[in-house]
Amino acid sequence: MQLSRRVVAGPDGQDARLLARRDLSAAWVDLRTAFRLRSIARGASPERAGAMAALLAPSSTSQALQNGADFHDSVAAVLADPPAEALVAQPELTNALDPVSYRDFMVFEEHFSFGYRWQNRPVPQVMYEIPVSYAGDPLSFIGPNETIPWPWYTQHLDYELELGIVIGRAGTNLRPEEALDHVLGLTILNDVSARDIQAREMGGGLGPSKGKHFACVTGPVITTLDEIPESGLAMTARVNGDVWCATTTAEMVWSIAEMVAWASQGEQLRPGALLGSGTCNGGSSLEIERRLQPGDELELEIECLGVTRNRLGAPGERGWTPRARVRRNGAAETHFLT
Amino acid sequence: MQLSRRVVAGPDGQDARLLARRDLSAAWVDLRTAFRLRSIARGASPERAGAMAALLAPSSTSQALQNGADFHDSVAAVLADPPAEALVAQPELTNALDPVSYRDFMVFEEHFSFGYRWQNRPVPQVMYEIPVSYAGDPLSFIGPNETIPWPWYTQHLDYELELGIVIGRAGTNLRPEEALDHVLGLTILNDVSARDIQAREMGGGLGPSKGKHFACVTGPVITTLDEIPESGLAMTARVNGDVWCATTTAEMVWSIAEMVAWASQGEQLRPGALLGSGTCNGGSSLEIERRLQPGDELELEIECLGVTRNRLGAPGERGWTPRARVRRNGAAETHFLT
Repeated sequence: MQLSRRVVAGPDGQDARLLARRDLSAAWVDLRTAFRLRSIARGASPERAGAMAALLAPSSTSQALQNGADFHDSVAAVLADPPAEALVAQPELTNALDPVSYRDFMVFEEHFSFGYRWQNRPVPQVMYEIPVSYAGDPLSFIGPNETIPWPWYTQHLDYELELGIVIGRAGTNLRPEEALDHVLGLTILNDVSARDIQAREMGGGLGPSKGKHFACVTGPVITTLDEIPESGLAMTARVNGDVWCATTTAEMVWSIAEMVAWASQGEQLRPGALLGSGTCNGGSSLEIERRLQPGDELELEIECLGVTRNRLGAPGERGWTPRARVRRNGAAETHFLT
Repeated sequence: MQLSRRVVAGPDGQDARLLARRDLSAAWVDLRTAFRLRSIARGASPERAGAMAALLAPSSTSQALQNGADFHDSVAAVLADPPAEALVAQPELTNALDPVSYRDFMVFEEHFSFGYRWQNRPVPQVMYEIPVSYAGDPLSFIGPNETIPWPWYTQHLDYELELGIVIGRAGTNLRPEEALDHVLGLTILNDVSARDIQAREMGGGLGPSKGKHFACVTGPVITTLDEIPESGLAMTARVNGDVWCATTTAEMVWSIAEMVAWASQGEQLRPGALLGSGTCNGGSSLEIERRLQPGDELELEIECLGVTRNRLGAPGERGWTPRARVRRNGAAETHFLT
């Protein structure tokens, strides 16, 4: 099964509609329409059917997943026999997921080995002991075909081709052998990065933060795990049509089940949470010594998960940067409000 | 003005109610009740008045702030002449804020200098060049009087007494001199930490993540900036009644205006976003070489912002931990799904 969304115009502006299809070759079904028609067929008034369908299939994929089995059972029911009125031919897809939270791991060895060399340090042993992660900003996500903003404060914008893991069912303290039952499926993830500020702020040992939080892209579909071959998925990045990366998801030091299990220790994983694999091997411009330019077109493709196509924006007007603090007599000047 | 919330029981379980008061000595007003009564007085039917009041003053403070001036103007109107029926005497307050996002800075020099010594490294120069931050998990927040969970995987739980900055109005690329107009007010913040796993994972240069994401506490009130003295606020931490920390908010390397301005560069700050100052000087048990125990009672107090009182839970049953990967022939074994 695949989930996606498309944007439609209405009297109050644009609204996202949830779509689903039974398999990768079936027609897309508009879930709110299908749920509404199903409720009417089951005796609801048109007005109440519309209200219930809007709650069960809201604009937000995360909120829909938080409806639990009421959502999943209804999806299964309408995909088994989709009403013709709910079919959508050739929709233009936007990002399938608006995540409720976002944690990014770093599990591709060739990439992280390169990353530590870039920081002039040896690969820390902890990378082979636990899956290490940081939190990103779930509010900065955009979708396919949107322009990736180029923050004014970076001269070195980069992409990161990653596998996105979408949590479908809440869980805590999971073991790897039960973790996949809590995964809805996979999606493309582009953890857009500003390398210059990232390198500076990571010198402080925290984050990254300003190097990442301005934008992140999720793919056009979430493909459920039952459609995914166990041998892994081919991953490709193209810039202005040239292949910059061709690799596979199979080369991860930690499995999806292990990342999910570790993320869930002592924490509640929620439906709609997104976990990233970290950059795949060769999956950023940094390690192939190339540079992206404003206006470049990125295409990130993962087998079974479609293609995410985005153009890079151009940096805007220069904003404000802090002025370095002077330390005197062993301490920096201090401030409170202003 | 102060904002807060209290929890009330209803037929469908517990629900949070937004409260406000004109100043630190006034009576608390239940906003949903006051808005409902105001709408009725302005000619709305009781049913529509209730529906509109529930939208304007929802359970979530972040969502209320995202209602914009429709919310703020209504608060001002009802606080100018609060109906007696909406007054709440001596409410038990829960966390004033459920943040929509959470970014934590590290701006207290004595604390971060200690922190780098703890990591056996010199203070990086970047700490005096830009305010460095990491993202936390906005979904893990609890309130005063709730038990702080003690994750099974840590033997070294710690508190961090911090100042929480609550964004009230959206903004991007702000300059420091306009940043405070986007701040609603301040609240107490306890960035609870698991020191052992934090030290391990920060060896990887990312995060912290598992060392932080299991719990965070915000205070019982948000006090608006006009009530805050420019000279700073006294900050105190007590454990089982003993004072472990007594300091002031005045000793920050970066001001609130600078943190907000820097956070907003290239990003949209949203109403309900929380920025943390980082631990105040002496504001964790680590730097005074003491250790917290399960069952300890923490009281964090900041002048004008009240007291946050929490008891520590006890670690539960041991969960799953990854088994270290063996590297052979220069590469680690790889995995995909399981």
